[in-house]
Amino acid sequence: MTAFTAYCACDAHGPLLPKMFQRRALRADDVLIEIAYCGVCHSDVHQVNNDWNNTTFPCVPGHEIVGHVAAVGPEVTRHKVGDRVAVGCFVDSCGQCESCLQGQEQHCTGGVTATYNGKDRVSGENTLGGYADKIVVREKFVLHVPDALDLKYASPLLCAGITVWTPMRENGVGKGTKLAVVGLGGLGHMGVKLAVALGAEVTVITTSPSKADDALALGAHKVLLSTDRKSMMASLNAFDFILDTIPKRHDVNPYLMLLGRNGVLVVVGAIEPLEPVHGGLLIRNNRRLAGSLIGGLPATQELLCFCAERQLLPQCELIDIGSVNDAYARMQANDVKYRFVIDMASLRESAAA
Amino acid sequence: MTAFTAYCACDAHGPLLPKMFQRRALRADDVLIEIAYCGVCHSDVHQVNNDWNNTTFPCVPGHEIVGHVAAVGPEVTRHKVGDRVAVGCFVDSCGQCESCLQGQEQHCTGGVTATYNGKDRVSGENTLGGYADKIVVREKFVLHVPDALDLKYASPLLCAGITVWTPMRENGVGKGTKLAVVGLGGLGHMGVKLAVALGAEVTVITTSPSKADDALALGAHKVLLSTDRKSMMASLNAFDFILDTIPKRHDVNPYLMLLGRNGVLVVVGAIEPLEPVHGGLLIRNNRRLAGSLIGGLPATQELLCFCAERQLLPQCELIDIGSVNDAYARMQANDVKYRFVIDMASLRESAAA
Repeated sequence: MTAFTAYCACDAHGPLLPKMFQRRALRADDVLIEIAYCGVCHSDVHQVNNDWNNTTFPCVPGHEIVGHVAAVGPEVTRHKVGDRVAVGCFVDSCGQCESCLQGQEQHCTGGVTATYNGKDRVSGENTLGGYADKIVVREKFVLHVPDALDLKYASPLLCAGITVWTPMRENGVGKGTKLAVVGLGGLGHMGVKLAVALGAEVTVITTSPSKADDALALGAHKVLLSTDRKSMMASLNAFDFILDTIPKRHDVNPYLMLLGRNGVLVVVGAIEPLEPVHGGLLIRNNRRLAGSLIGGLPATQELLCFCAERQLLPQCELIDIGSVNDAYARMQANDVKYRFVIDMASLRESAAA
Repeated sequence: MTAFTAYCACDAHGPLLPKMFQRRALRADDVLIEIAYCGVCHSDVHQVNNDWNNTTFPCVPGHEIVGHVAAVGPEVTRHKVGDRVAVGCFVDSCGQCESCLQGQEQHCTGGVTATYNGKDRVSGENTLGGYADKIVVREKFVLHVPDALDLKYASPLLCAGITVWTPMRENGVGKGTKLAVVGLGGLGHMGVKLAVALGAEVTVITTSPSKADDALALGAHKVLLSTDRKSMMASLNAFDFILDTIPKRHDVNPYLMLLGRNGVLVVVGAIEPLEPVHGGLLIRNNRRLAGSLIGGLPATQELLCFCAERQLLPQCELIDIGSVNDAYARMQANDVKYRFVIDMASLRESAAA
């Protein structure tokens, strides 16, 4: 067993507070990771608040994890002590279903094991996430972080990044794709950067004129104000692909209308019922409304390599672990550009103090 | 000009009554068709009732047309007098947009010219459909009916058939595809027959136990009662493709849940707002909700050839033109298996009498 410190919530809506935990002893194929940085995802807030009525407390959030290998089990072959590594939203899966065999572990029919608030497949214990000093993970679920990728900024790729990368790759986004991004937060800003890097013609659709400069600074080619009816009408049928990162119930019809023939709008943020979709809008132009859930291990590794090669990094605000409760409040007020990342050195320092 | 008799509605909800019209003189690339049979489509009823507030009266419905070439313009090369031919939902398009160039004329960005209640691209006149003795159509929009295809039963392929064929072909339905059909009417029954012929494992999903025998008689391998919660739960994630032919507002969520990874539900009947779609259901399994609008000329010709080769025909109830108002009433009461087809000889006889 490995003792470690983590920030956890002990009950719904409670503050995150430091607490000592014990990690399992390394199994044969386990890797012990000393966590360097962990991104703060909106779902961390939902989980801590028990918004989805499925949180097991104490809950240690965090599934955008990067760090270094500190120890390995005897059968580990893919990682060695000192390697720069990363862990995303899941830490195990059945390994035998079609999804797992195809590297789409997030869709494991046996149920993927979430990095936190999941159930360990061996011990049945509640999994604990990355707001921690250390984490123990099966080697298969530990990704390599290329040397060229700055660890400080890499962590949001593990959830925000892969969530937008997968649907773009699976829908063939590339040179000349007419692509729009709706919502300019943690996911949306990565959508813009990645889509531009893939060669797409990128438009940011926003309700807020104040975001236009931000969108252009991120590399977007155009901005479309969804409140400007004339501009919206001029953009009917204009897009091949729309990435919809709005994280709550909303009306997709005004965006569906902007899709050309066989165009697809991919919802990655809203996990609640949407406003009624107009069947005629789907039938006209053979439009598609799709969802997409994070991404598998091969796609995540591909993303890390792509970003290393292009020096393409999320825009992060680094915080100390002691600021995490403030960061949650700021996130809920949309006051972050575009992702909080916890510098885990601050946890070690506070534990030592 | 060619005089001809047609059944037309003179105002919304009015009965269809015979009336003499004049067809335009043949243009250089026009074909004059003597209509043998014309299918009765649900949209005919909607259009006659002016349900979509866009009907120009007098309105001659009918866009499932088969017959023989009676005359050709001087530049016609693809058809000759006596040829067995067919006309579907449109009779012209711009010919220059990407959709037209790709044989997806139904999505013409200049606006396809509907077979009836459309606007002739040359004269601007209201187009008149197939409940008529004759029709004049540009040769490009006239399809060949293979000799092996019985004209009596071929007409519903031109709308009901192509509407379900296109999404199956575009989504790669074939051997082993786990496919479900929702709604067993004019479209649904063709969906079953075509899907079986393509090699899919076909399930009919219905609310009504009485339709089970009909479904199996059409070739479906299984029937799933949507009112049976236990059976529905046992079918979660079970399908690759769901063809949803329900022609009105409805809740697609219970069907979306049945889609496996990357599965697609294609709406072909409902052109109104659907009940709120659950975003989480789309995100889980990367499901897609799509629409599909009839099909282009190449796909329609492909369908006619496929059906001729397989001797695969819609199940029709032949009626005389004088029964068309009764047929409308019966369709609205869902009392037809599965498509009314007007034998246009009855129109010629009544006109001669």
